[in-house]
Amino acid sequence: MKIYDIVQRSDTTAGRTFDFFVLFLIVFSIITLSIETLPGLSSTTKELLNLSEVVVTVLFTVEYVLRVATAPSKKDYIFSFYGIIDLLAILPFYLALGIDLRSIRVFRLLRIFRILKMAQYSKAMERFGKALSHAKAEALVFPCITLMLLYFSAAGIYYFENEAQPENFPSIFHSLWWAVTTLTTVGYGDFYPITAGGKLFTFLILMCGLGIVAVPAGLIAAALSKVLQEEGREQD
Amino acid sequence: MKIYDIVQRSDTTAGRTFDFFVLFLIVFSIITLSIETLPGLSSTTKELLNLSEVVVTVLFTVEYVLRVATAPSKKDYIFSFYGIIDLLAILPFYLALGIDLRSIRVFRLLRIFRILKMAQYSKAMERFGKALSHAKAEALVFPCITLMLLYFSAAGIYYFENEAQPENFPSIFHSLWWAVTTLTTVGYGDFYPITAGGKLFTFLILMCGLGIVAVPAGLIAAALSKVLQEEGREQD
Amino acid sequence: MKIYDIVQRSDTTAGRTFDFFVLFLIVFSIITLSIETLPGLSSTTKELLNLSEVVVTVLFTVEYVLRVATAPSKKDYIFSFYGIIDLLAILPFYLALGIDLRSIRVFRLLRIFRILKMAQYSKAMERFGKALSHAKAEALVFPCITLMLLYFSAAGIYYFENEAQPENFPSIFHSLWWAVTTLTTVGYGDFYPITAGGKLFTFLILMCGLGIVAVPAGLIAAALSKVLQEEGREQD
Amino acid sequence: MKIYDIVQRSDTTAGRTFDFFVLFLIVFSIITLSIETLPGLSSTTKELLNLSEVVVTVLFTVEYVLRVATAPSKKDYIFSFYGIIDLLAILPFYLALGIDLRSIRVFRLLRIFRILKMAQYSKAMERFGKALSHAKAEALVFPCITLMLLYFSAAGIYYFENEAQPENFPSIFHSLWWAVTTLTTVGYGDFYPITAGGKLFTFLILMCGLGIVAVPAGLIAAALSKVLQEEGREQD
Repeated sequence: MKIYDIVQRSDTTAGRTFDFFVLFLIVFSIITLSIETLPGLSSTTKELLNLSEVVVTVLFTVEYVLRVATAPSKKDYIFSFYGIIDLLAILPFYLALGIDLRSIRVFRLLRIFRILKMAQYSKAMERFGKALSHAKAEALVFPCITLMLLYFSAAGIYYFENEAQPENFPSIFHSLWWAVTTLTTVGYGDFYPITAGGKLFTFLILMCGLGIVAVPAGLIAAALSKVLQEEGREQD
Repeated sequence: MKIYDIVQRSDTTAGRTFDFFVLFLIVFSIITLSIETLPGLSSTTKELLNLSEVVVTVLFTVEYVLRVATAPSKKDYIFSFYGIIDLLAILPFYLALGIDLRSIRVFRLLRIFRILKMAQYSKAMERFGKALSHAKAEALVFPCITLMLLYFSAAGIYYFENEAQPENFPSIFHSLWWAVTTLTTVGYGDFYPITAGGKLFTFLILMCGLGIVAVPAGLIAAALSKVLQEEGREQD
Repeated sequence: MKIYDIVQRSDTTAGRTFDFFVLFLIVFSIITLSIETLPGLSSTTKELLNLSEVVVTVLFTVEYVLRVATAPSKKDYIFSFYGIIDLLAILPFYLALGIDLRSIRVFRLLRIFRILKMAQYSKAMERFGKALSHAKAEALVFPCITLMLLYFSAAGIYYFENEAQPENFPSIFHSLWWAVTTLTTVGYGDFYPITAGGKLFTFLILMCGLGIVAVPAGLIAAALSKVLQEEGREQD
Repeated sequence: MKIYDIVQRSDTTAGRTFDFFVLFLIVFSIITLSIETLPGLSSTTKELLNLSEVVVTVLFTVEYVLRVATAPSKKDYIFSFYGIIDLLAILPFYLALGIDLRSIRVFRLLRIFRILKMAQYSKAMERFGKALSHAKAEALVFPCITLMLLYFSAAGIYYFENEAQPENFPSIFHSLWWAVTTLTTVGYGDFYPITAGGKLFTFLILMCGLGIVAVPAGLIAAALSKVLQEEGREQD
């Protein structure tokens, strides 16, 4: 099957050409999408960008249809990571929805690693996947604990700061934003405690929080360490 | 004993139903607690929220009494992590205290892992517990060193900045807040050194501080690494 | 020798009493030192604080003299970590120097671990010392690389931002402060790039910088991991 | 060959003297370069600095010519890390270019480790190189993923915040700066989301982002851990 070789394989000349054309299209569409957002564009530029958007979307649609048509299992492709991204990137255009998901296309660039047939890359991904499987439960538990800590921090700071700064901490929902920026140590400085109680509470929360934030790094290190060790043993 | 099976066990249909009902109650009470803090609520909404709070607290009280009554060892439950949280979540309501500890209920959600009988979750917790036991002493020593470093930083920055910014660094106690936000790298930007000496001091403190902050992550990684290794050996 | 037993040993009742009295004195002096910095103290309070300072310093001086007198090797004590801290904490008082090093006393609290005779603590320290000896060279090389990166960042941002913000980035020396707060991710927000070139440069520097900052954590993890492993082998 | 011994070797007296003279020149030129940027210098100082700049550049040019002339392989030196830095540091002076690359000289200080013949240092570098070779693929893949995440974050925040703050988030290009400062947790606070949607999006992006940022530290830890282990085995 000719079309199958072009669309699904990347070890033929035609397949590689197709892949690189799609990659080029993705980069092109990301750049036009970004330029589109610049303020003060002339109407000619805007028309050109709109036209290119139509062309790109049509081409992506053709690609999507071809991929579905040639996929060994249509279901597997449609519900795969790339299948969903491919669909989300073109659907809003046809549905004339208010939501713009074109920027999601950037993740299609991940394909570049597959195209380049980097043996090392696939080994890296495999290794990382193994590491994650060693730490699957932890990877599920810690986001939950983080969420609970975030809520508790927000409720606490609301309790301490609401009276002193009613305009900055008007409710627990508003305080959640403070909790997020503080526990991730981003610290924009748009909201911060000013009462002694609030500051002490922030200190205690940060001490716990930084310990919890250190866990993922430690986990990844330990899991990857085990994978590398197992590889070493197999080589012996 | 029928009530024991419902309250304490989660492998019977009745037990699971009870557990999920309590989980639902916790989530419900957290949401109402958060809505309650929103400014500009109508008096009808407020009344509804108050009513739901009374109902929820009564239900939690019933649950607490049942748990104490059916616990194999009443003492063990009352002084356990969950026992204390359960009590703290309802007590302020009855004592009409100024302190509001209802937000602590969020940690009761941790029970979800126990209810879901996630074998992996308990393995993850066990593994993490083992890792902590490998690094118990370090986990005690480093918070102490962090506290000393915080005090030293506060005293130092007070010495350098007090004259230049008497309103921002009026005393060592006020400077402690600066030390906390700086060494955790949150950096709100509400207070920062402006003198050359203060900036140089901040640089030196940060160099030490970041080294010390890296220790917990390294510790967790090393301890978890050892646990994973031991598991691997046992499987051999 | 009676005095030797009291001052140098902590396994006798007299020795322990002496140790705890000194610990109490340190905590007391840290608290008075902090209170002293509070603005708006009454003259009576100030006099009391001054008096207590004189008493505390005299007592610390007596302690220092006793420690030197009873030390098995006077030289070893005087030039040890604690010997230097002990001297620095009392010297400025007698020399009536402008520099106030009393806050350095906080590090004397480290003795608490020795007094408590925590076997685990000494094991933790020993383990950490071993880990450091595994990574001695790296611990020397990376601060140097960090310093070079800081200077390069400062020079770069000066080049990009000086024209646009001459008041914020007047020279490379001033830009160093920006480099410190940015590469440590503190980000106070007192100074930040506003030109496109400066922002791009900051991005590139941060990508390198965060990689370098990740090295110490990785290093500590790897070194501690090795130490824990060796311990495990010895137990086999 | 006499000149070869002086320029290329550092185990002869003449060679060491030459090396230390060059090191001194580098430090001297870095200091003068920094002083040069100070505002409000007298014209005499400026003239002196200009003169010293000419002298230093001439000396560096002589050094560069000597290094090229005495290098066993001219090509290898010219295209080596140090060769390129050496050239970049003097070229702008002769070409009278607007770009000033003199600050790049700071990286020439890395030579100090080579000069000091630190056996440990070279072992540290070797170890680190081995660790990197274990994790080469990952070291390539993760910067790419970070770039994609940055773009996606910028596009997302543009979508959420553009309407509310058209002056702060006028286009995706401008939003990229926000994405960089947020995902690295620098958080200057010059730009931050104010809409509920933007804040929620920031929260989600940070959760993913901090996980990805933890990967390099974990990777370095795991790779270094393996290297230290292999060393241990060889010693057995």
